[in-house]
Amino acid sequence: MKRTKLRYGQLGGSLGAFIGGVHRRAIAIEETAELVAGCFDNRWENNKETGDFYGLAEDRIYKDYTEMVKAECSREDKIDFVSICTPNFLHYEMAKAFLEAGIHVVCEKPLCFETKEAEELQKIAKENNVLFAVTYTYTGYAMVKFAKELIEAGEIGDIINVNAEYLQEWLIDEVGKTDSATSKFSVWRMDPKMTGGSNCVGDIGTHIEAIVTYMTGLKTKKVAAVLDNYGLALDLNANILVELENGCHGVFSCSQVCAGHYNGLVVRIYGTKGSIEWVQEEPDTLKVTKKGEPIRVYSRGTGCVTGLAERRNHIPSGHPEGLTMAFANIYRAFQDSVLKIVNGEEITADDKDYPSIEYGVEGVKFIQACVESSKNNAAWVEL
Amino acid sequence: MKRTKLRYGQLGGSLGAFIGGVHRRAIAIEETAELVAGCFDNRWENNKETGDFYGLAEDRIYKDYTEMVKAECSREDKIDFVSICTPNFLHYEMAKAFLEAGIHVVCEKPLCFETKEAEELQKIAKENNVLFAVTYTYTGYAMVKFAKELIEAGEIGDIINVNAEYLQEWLIDEVGKTDSATSKFSVWRMDPKMTGGSNCVGDIGTHIEAIVTYMTGLKTKKVAAVLDNYGLALDLNANILVELENGCHGVFSCSQVCAGHYNGLVVRIYGTKGSIEWVQEEPDTLKVTKKGEPIRVYSRGTGCVTGLAERRNHIPSGHPEGLTMAFANIYRAFQDSVLKIVNGEEITADDKDYPSIEYGVEGVKFIQACVESSKNNAAWVEL
Amino acid sequence: MKRTKLRYGQLGGSLGAFIGGVHRRAIAIEETAELVAGCFDNRWENNKETGDFYGLAEDRIYKDYTEMVKAECSREDKIDFVSICTPNFLHYEMAKAFLEAGIHVVCEKPLCFETKEAEELQKIAKENNVLFAVTYTYTGYAMVKFAKELIEAGEIGDIINVNAEYLQEWLIDEVGKTDSATSKFSVWRMDPKMTGGSNCVGDIGTHIEAIVTYMTGLKTKKVAAVLDNYGLALDLNANILVELENGCHGVFSCSQVCAGHYNGLVVRIYGTKGSIEWVQEEPDTLKVTKKGEPIRVYSRGTGCVTGLAERRNHIPSGHPEGLTMAFANIYRAFQDSVLKIVNGEEITADDKDYPSIEYGVEGVKFIQACVESSKNNAAWVEL
Amino acid sequence: MKRTKLRYGQLGGSLGAFIGGVHRRAIAIEETAELVAGCFDNRWENNKETGDFYGLAEDRIYKDYTEMVKAECSREDKIDFVSICTPNFLHYEMAKAFLEAGIHVVCEKPLCFETKEAEELQKIAKENNVLFAVTYTYTGYAMVKFAKELIEAGEIGDIINVNAEYLQEWLIDEVGKTDSATSKFSVWRMDPKMTGGSNCVGDIGTHIEAIVTYMTGLKTKKVAAVLDNYGLALDLNANILVELENGCHGVFSCSQVCAGHYNGLVVRIYGTKGSIEWVQEEPDTLKVTKKGEPIRVYSRGTGCVTGLAERRNHIPSGHPEGLTMAFANIYRAFQDSVLKIVNGEEITADDKDYPSIEYGVEGVKFIQACVESSKNNAAWVEL
Repeated sequence: MKRTKLRYGQLGGSLGAFIGGVHRRAIAIEETAELVAGCFDNRWENNKETGDFYGLAEDRIYKDYTEMVKAECSREDKIDFVSICTPNFLHYEMAKAFLEAGIHVVCEKPLCFETKEAEELQKIAKENNVLFAVTYTYTGYAMVKFAKELIEAGEIGDIINVNAEYLQEWLIDEVGKTDSATSKFSVWRMDPKMTGGSNCVGDIGTHIEAIVTYMTGLKTKKVAAVLDNYGLALDLNANILVELENGCHGVFSCSQVCAGHYNGLVVRIYGTKGSIEWVQEEPDTLKVTKKGEPIRVYSRGTGCVTGLAERRNHIPSGHPEGLTMAFANIYRAFQDSVLKIVNGEEITADDKDYPSIEYGVEGVKFIQACVESSKNNAAWVEL
Repeated sequence: MKRTKLRYGQLGGSLGAFIGGVHRRAIAIEETAELVAGCFDNRWENNKETGDFYGLAEDRIYKDYTEMVKAECSREDKIDFVSICTPNFLHYEMAKAFLEAGIHVVCEKPLCFETKEAEELQKIAKENNVLFAVTYTYTGYAMVKFAKELIEAGEIGDIINVNAEYLQEWLIDEVGKTDSATSKFSVWRMDPKMTGGSNCVGDIGTHIEAIVTYMTGLKTKKVAAVLDNYGLALDLNANILVELENGCHGVFSCSQVCAGHYNGLVVRIYGTKGSIEWVQEEPDTLKVTKKGEPIRVYSRGTGCVTGLAERRNHIPSGHPEGLTMAFANIYRAFQDSVLKIVNGEEITADDKDYPSIEYGVEGVKFIQACVESSKNNAAWVEL
Repeated sequence: MKRTKLRYGQLGGSLGAFIGGVHRRAIAIEETAELVAGCFDNRWENNKETGDFYGLAEDRIYKDYTEMVKAECSREDKIDFVSICTPNFLHYEMAKAFLEAGIHVVCEKPLCFETKEAEELQKIAKENNVLFAVTYTYTGYAMVKFAKELIEAGEIGDIINVNAEYLQEWLIDEVGKTDSATSKFSVWRMDPKMTGGSNCVGDIGTHIEAIVTYMTGLKTKKVAAVLDNYGLALDLNANILVELENGCHGVFSCSQVCAGHYNGLVVRIYGTKGSIEWVQEEPDTLKVTKKGEPIRVYSRGTGCVTGLAERRNHIPSGHPEGLTMAFANIYRAFQDSVLKIVNGEEITADDKDYPSIEYGVEGVKFIQACVESSKNNAAWVEL
Repeated sequence: MKRTKLRYGQLGGSLGAFIGGVHRRAIAIEETAELVAGCFDNRWENNKETGDFYGLAEDRIYKDYTEMVKAECSREDKIDFVSICTPNFLHYEMAKAFLEAGIHVVCEKPLCFETKEAEELQKIAKENNVLFAVTYTYTGYAMVKFAKELIEAGEIGDIINVNAEYLQEWLIDEVGKTDSATSKFSVWRMDPKMTGGSNCVGDIGTHIEAIVTYMTGLKTKKVAAVLDNYGLALDLNANILVELENGCHGVFSCSQVCAGHYNGLVVRIYGTKGSIEWVQEEPDTLKVTKKGEPIRVYSRGTGCVTGLAERRNHIPSGHPEGLTMAFANIYRAFQDSVLKIVNGEEITADDKDYPSIEYGVEGVKFIQACVESSKNNAAWVEL
């Protein structure tokens, strides 16, 4: 019989954690997968409480992920995919274990710390025919999909300049802090062992790189970066010159210390025939200017927004969808792909519209290149 | 044993319907209630398909609401509340049946057609000690709650002028249509028997009245309204002078024929010490100006947004929450209230923060007064 | 010999006065008229100082306007036009005197207090073949001219709704003031003898009526108005239902007590095919939406802004022109008209593009109708 | 006798030229200087026509600037200052001649091509006690002055990041043009002999550097720049990493090929305590955010905008002043300084508030450093 619902497990995301809850809500919105297993926390009490809250069977609340892989694989009703929402340093080993077990994986970004590891995961996924999504969330917004389609259709011509930024303010109090014990993110964000070689570029700068590639189809070729640590172990701010694979230049800026910016991802793509601007805090609109014409503002859900952006629309124009819907769109495509596989059907282009492991690999390369460039006085470093 | 999850049933909202899906997603986001029964459509096939999709027991997919009331009341595990998402003309009888059965009710607006009926429902709810929420959705947004708290705290002084509007464009093609058979909403929106005495004021104008009351604590005392039908049976546009119960004046405008507006609810409240402006399409910010000071823009989730707005916050600042979260906030308060009742606990002020039957009654009065005023050449009509 | 420069005189506008200075700067910008005579102040010292500052001949600094009319008329090099920038109650008699002497007149709004007087001035101007501009400033902005042309060309179809407002905050402290001696505008604004029957509608509401007529070509037919005095002698706030001459409805709101609004004139015109929005505080852009298409934002000075808006453009796009340029555009058309007359040339359509005495007359009617309606409990009053 | 008006001459700026007209209007607005001499064009007919239009004496319309210096210096009523509005390559020699003659100079930017020349002019000005303003126009806006004062007062703490851009679209059609004969700016903009080593950085990038220094008091220490020529002789686009003299980093972007940007100068300064954002196309507002507080939007002319911004205010809040007023503010300070000198009075801090020759020198250094860096693969170059 054709299946209409999937079973999934989650790593990390105990009750109260931010990003794990967003993942669950996103899956709930699309209504085609059910949470049946998990290892939500390394503190058993929290883990158990979370599993109970979602009505999981006792034997599917696992003590650790290795036990979970093993136990699930021995079941007939094993999970179809796992959602990994743990801190960065755990992504690699967890993803690897599930990929090797042939279970599809959704993983938070950044994928891992080293390009070598990223490419290894990519290889395993390919060999095992396993799907692997990396949640570069912002690619999930309907209007970002519309931007992608307009650019693909040549509406703005050849890309000649890119200006993108991702500014936040929440770590402004860390500037100049020498005593990390007092800082609000002392636990793991400033520990390279848990966070990787970069804090700011790794956490948010990588989103810029991913969304620019998603919209334009162009990878970042090289970077000349200045990362500012302000006396801390890792960066809080970065200004990055970039060259894309078509030779055009641009600038990416990311920061966690810019007062007045909350989650300020702004992407502006300039071409020979026009330009496109998208602002994450006003995600339901897209500004498009064609050379010699007035600025156009498109709104999600209106008749003039077509293609995938229309097919991924949830509610009428003017009714804000919000971030969770962007997440939902990623899960929707990923889950549709998995459903097609389990039902032996063909995967469509729409089904493939989620950020795959390729985005994960490029993201790791980008972060590493920025760190290396900054150490070399902003010399150009190829990805 | 203390219950942590509720059981609910739904009327209307078969797969594919807009507003019923929003209600279900909102409930799913808050994670404290489970769908167990329903009568989703008067076409059996659609009804069954929807019930099956959500894994409902066969015997809890009901043919009609009367059967549902009866059957549920005979069960030990009967539903705790029902969510009514059917067309307007069904609200009254459905709500009445469940209220009389002692089942808590959430109902879409407008509550019903006649003030008499509305007050009857209010009376039954009170007598039976049953909770009754009417989904004036926009009162659910965190920043609307912040506006309410600032005004209550006297931050803008005494209210001296109100300017609010709710503009849409989606019915612009109906203007001047004489052959209603060709119109896109011929089925029921232009039939007073199914829609009530007003289309535009009843559908969206009533939201203005509700949100102004929610924010300011002031009811609308009287109206002088001009409704424009543009040749159709019911109104598509309205401009309304209002007097609030404190004697201040203002204007409410609503329209479904204003090109360039999608869901343009804008509320501006002016007081002797300052003003407040909230725009539904940018719901996560609130503009507050105190006399003689710069304009302040507050963002949801930041440290300076406190009180209930903080407690109802789901995700960090700058990450758009969207309309579904506003709905979720209403269900959250309502469900917390129901949970407290079933567990024998005391209901708090936060739990009560949903638009109750009082809003439903005032809404019906407002719609009727606008219709009457417009028929009388915009003469003042008291609510 | 063909003249290229005009001579003008000014009434009111001594050094330091606001609006008189704006008039002089506007004329200076267009560079086709020279100040040669004036009666700038009823205090001789101020009058003399102003005249001297501008290098006027001693005998052309006049003690009063009657002397000025007489003396100028006896000169060969008499002034070509006079600019009247005095308080409201002086407009009528001054304009009358210069019109009767055959001298062209530019006068501040409101033209006068009574419709009868306004029509008398209109009659005199016509009989004497004298030009008469009333400075409804906002009609001078380039993008307002573009709006007018788009509407004339049918771009937004038939007008079906109008929503316009003019909100300020500067008199908020007057609300509830019983002791007018302490108020900041006690001298003449609250004295009906000097201000006329309305303060707020007369000062700013009249601008709404004028600009709507300018843009749409439609006069206001009737009004249902609520004026709020908040305990003072004259109004500080007004909400007005309107019916235009084509039968469409709308609302005009004006206020001097709305915190956070400085000079907030906003005009929105809705038609069967689209809509137009113009915001005075961002005067160089125009928002135009055609049904079913994205919102378009046009900018002054760009290639897609054509017609009179292009011909009245002073500086490149993106370089803000400001209010003084709007004034300059009015003077430019008026002075071009006068130059054509003195040179015996034909006046073109562009030359006529200034708000003429007809606007002045309609303005007085509008103000009077609003005052009367408000006294009659917001009953409809025809203009 | 104390003088209240100055006499000035102009170089360049014949009727119809853009920037020369702006200079004259700005001077006209401030009303303290009169045009009495000039050499407006190297085509005699245009030169004569312009001189005649402004009523200049025949013998003060000069064939060339050398004649003008000589003749003016021999007069008792010689000009007090000269305004240089010619193409870039003429600035150096003209400025030099007038400085040597002891005549105060206002000159368009960029000051000249070579740092050596710039410093020479600076030296001559100093030795001859002659004032020298370079029209970095945007420093003239009232709200830019307010930004400067807030930063000086420590309101945003120590500067830790800077993000500024100046984007235009007007040369987009030049991208990839090999046949410069067809291009719209073939005459001199793409000729390094007439324009200098950079087109885009020299024309608009230099404004970024100047306004950042004006606001923050911090000079640019070094740059790492990528200039894009798109096949032409000079740059049309540039992305520049910068380090300011306090060690903080940032990015400056300038472009003439970004569709949808007209004159998009945007300056954002981030400090340890807050941030400031100013947008040239909305010049009358300033966005200020203090850490942990809501975003504040200040408007020119309101009571909370104090200091020099208040003293340079021309018209009430909400009435746009526009670019010409920014120019006027620069001339106002410069002319007040000159007036004080001719009257033997002391020059105040307000009088000194115009961009002096120091800005001119830094601007030339900045342009040269960007060009050099770009030639060296974006290596850091010190100014």
